[in-house]
Amino acid sequence: MLKEVSGGVCAPKGFKASGIHCGIRKNKVKKDLALIVSDVRCATACVYTTNLVKGAPILVTQKHVADGYAQAVIVNSGNANTCNADGVQIAEEMCALVQEYTGIAAEDVVVASTGVIGQPLSVAPIAAGMAQLVAGLGDNSDGAAEAIMTTDTVRKQIAFSFMLDGKECRIGAICKGVGMICPNMATMLMFVTTDAAISPAMLQKALAADVKKSLNMLSVDRDTSTNDTLCVMASGLAGNAPIVQQDASYRAFCRALNAVTTAMCRMLAADGEGATKLIECRVEGARSLTQARLCAKAVVNSNLVKAAMFGADANWGRVLCALGYSGAGIDPDAVGVVFRSASGAVEVCVNGRGVPFSEEQAKRVLSESEVDICVTLGDGHYHATAWGCDLTYDYVKINGDYRT
Amino acid sequence: MLKEVSGGVCAPKGFKASGIHCGIRKNKVKKDLALIVSDVRCATACVYTTNLVKGAPILVTQKHVADGYAQAVIVNSGNANTCNADGVQIAEEMCALVQEYTGIAAEDVVVASTGVIGQPLSVAPIAAGMAQLVAGLGDNSDGAAEAIMTTDTVRKQIAFSFMLDGKECRIGAICKGVGMICPNMATMLMFVTTDAAISPAMLQKALAADVKKSLNMLSVDRDTSTNDTLCVMASGLAGNAPIVQQDASYRAFCRALNAVTTAMCRMLAADGEGATKLIECRVEGARSLTQARLCAKAVVNSNLVKAAMFGADANWGRVLCALGYSGAGIDPDAVGVVFRSASGAVEVCVNGRGVPFSEEQAKRVLSESEVDICVTLGDGHYHATAWGCDLTYDYVKINGDYRT
Repeated sequence: MLKEVSGGVCAPKGFKASGIHCGIRKNKVKKDLALIVSDVRCATACVYTTNLVKGAPILVTQKHVADGYAQAVIVNSGNANTCNADGVQIAEEMCALVQEYTGIAAEDVVVASTGVIGQPLSVAPIAAGMAQLVAGLGDNSDGAAEAIMTTDTVRKQIAFSFMLDGKECRIGAICKGVGMICPNMATMLMFVTTDAAISPAMLQKALAADVKKSLNMLSVDRDTSTNDTLCVMASGLAGNAPIVQQDASYRAFCRALNAVTTAMCRMLAADGEGATKLIECRVEGARSLTQARLCAKAVVNSNLVKAAMFGADANWGRVLCALGYSGAGIDPDAVGVVFRSASGAVEVCVNGRGVPFSEEQAKRVLSESEVDICVTLGDGHYHATAWGCDLTYDYVKINGDYRT
Repeated sequence: MLKEVSGGVCAPKGFKASGIHCGIRKNKVKKDLALIVSDVRCATACVYTTNLVKGAPILVTQKHVADGYAQAVIVNSGNANTCNADGVQIAEEMCALVQEYTGIAAEDVVVASTGVIGQPLSVAPIAAGMAQLVAGLGDNSDGAAEAIMTTDTVRKQIAFSFMLDGKECRIGAICKGVGMICPNMATMLMFVTTDAAISPAMLQKALAADVKKSLNMLSVDRDTSTNDTLCVMASGLAGNAPIVQQDASYRAFCRALNAVTTAMCRMLAADGEGATKLIECRVEGARSLTQARLCAKAVVNSNLVKAAMFGADANWGRVLCALGYSGAGIDPDAVGVVFRSASGAVEVCVNGRGVPFSEEQAKRVLSESEVDICVTLGDGHYHATAWGCDLTYDYVKINGDYRT
């Protein structure tokens, strides 16, 4: 059904990408400016941070995609363009530069910035780099994925192919984000492209439903960023009958979208600032979806659980503690906890009470690079998954001297 | 008015305390069992954790103070007696031991435990230590304060004297708690004694009002413990006319109580696990108390703000970010931020925008052992203060291998 393919945001028909170092960052080895363009105008849906302190680019993007369409994305790293007096003007100038160099109307440009908050962003290096940026447009998802990285240690991109009424469609994405990650409607920056034909309204519907189970279930540090933006652009060039209602094709598209966003959540969590391991918390037996989600999120959010995972310490009492204050109204006497990884599984708690287990086996299980914390709440039918990472010395180190 | 005095929980008339090593902890240098007794039955008020996973001692204490009176407190460290099948029975046996060795009715005993969750607690070492514990009763707040410590690095106690209708009254306290600290109705463990005469109803009223501005505004790591208990016992031996209504004496008592709980909050935050500095966030100009409190708490809760404070990095954008996701409905364009300490003050943000400041001066200000983050939200009349600490390598170290 779904098949992973290479090419990231350039895998779907009609998309080209580019990434360069233009000089916003002092480190010349690090790219800092990315561009994605489509051959045609795309149905476009976005979700943004719920933080009331919003980056200026978000205000400009909201205006530009209000009609449901866009054709290009420009993104810089190294500066969030947030809490600056001239922020909106700078973001608009970035869109105007795209128009000047590509002919795409500024009103069809999505703009995003990521980096330090509260430092003025000069448009000069961006203007100076535009010719090189546009010249580099091609099958270069790598370059764009690299140019949006901040403290990310790896490029994050993926693409899948899937079938809609006999036509092969593709969907691809790039994203970034390692700290200040507790998305609430979106993660820091993620750009998804697809050549499936879908109306703007159905695309927004699919996206809004998807983030509830994907990006909103991800947390590195509970700090909801000011600049979170998730943008999906659909070129329609795959030639399928356009999706305009909630039919089988819509559901197939939603599955493909969720495969992309879930894969990205796992990449984001695994590369969380300073992280040595990905933590996945799966909650089952809940009496409602809300209960399942609150519980899963509380566990991956707990500093104490995260530190225990770093130390490969099967301190399951901290899992119970997090479930207890989650606000999910659990029954403590019905809770079960199992730690699971590539090295096996170890049951540590049944009906809210500890059970004997081998500390050695637990240590082995928790020492893997991905650990699942499996929680059962009772005999309800709902389940949810949340992603996070361990809390390490390096998280403190990275964030103790990020700005200076 | 209020005068600090020595003696901790033994400063008020009628109270004796003791603390010993009985063997719950393997480390023989660390005391692990504390006892506080009063010469007379005391009006007693308690607040407990809101975590749904509650330590067994809390269930027993709730029953024992339901009538508004108690006469003794027994506390062990090294084991939280939580998530154990026989937890309630063990807690009841601890109270029965107090009756056996002191003659105070088991139903007048407050019991508390702190330490690892989910490991069975044997009553044997407690029973074996009771004779020594009771023999040590005297002016020994130090011993009791020491015996309730877990990863605390310093004893936490304080006492004040104050006047009620011509009589000198005293109020004293001991407490502990350095991790899993985000009290919601109480902190981990705090025991307050006073010789003021006050009815159980007025004492509970004073306590419930106080924790909203004291312990509920404290956070080390956002993890609300399973065992939080704050207990105030009033012996009435100071001889003042008993407080039975909200009069001037009640208000004077509330001020004394708040002096104790605020001093304790500052000690708890300063000794937060791994902390190198106390962070106090003062929010002014709020349009409601709720808004002020949500904002202050969000700032001291932010891992990113905490890590920046560890690095003495004036990364004020993270303060704005926390205010923005606090849920307090702030106006980002009205926010001002000043960092303040014994080394002076540095204004970093006015009307939501950065202002030029000396990085050297900021570094000096943020390198002190106490840093105030002063936030103005607008021209409202409400204010609130929250306490926290920085996030350090040692927090991760302590919690990466706490149990094993």
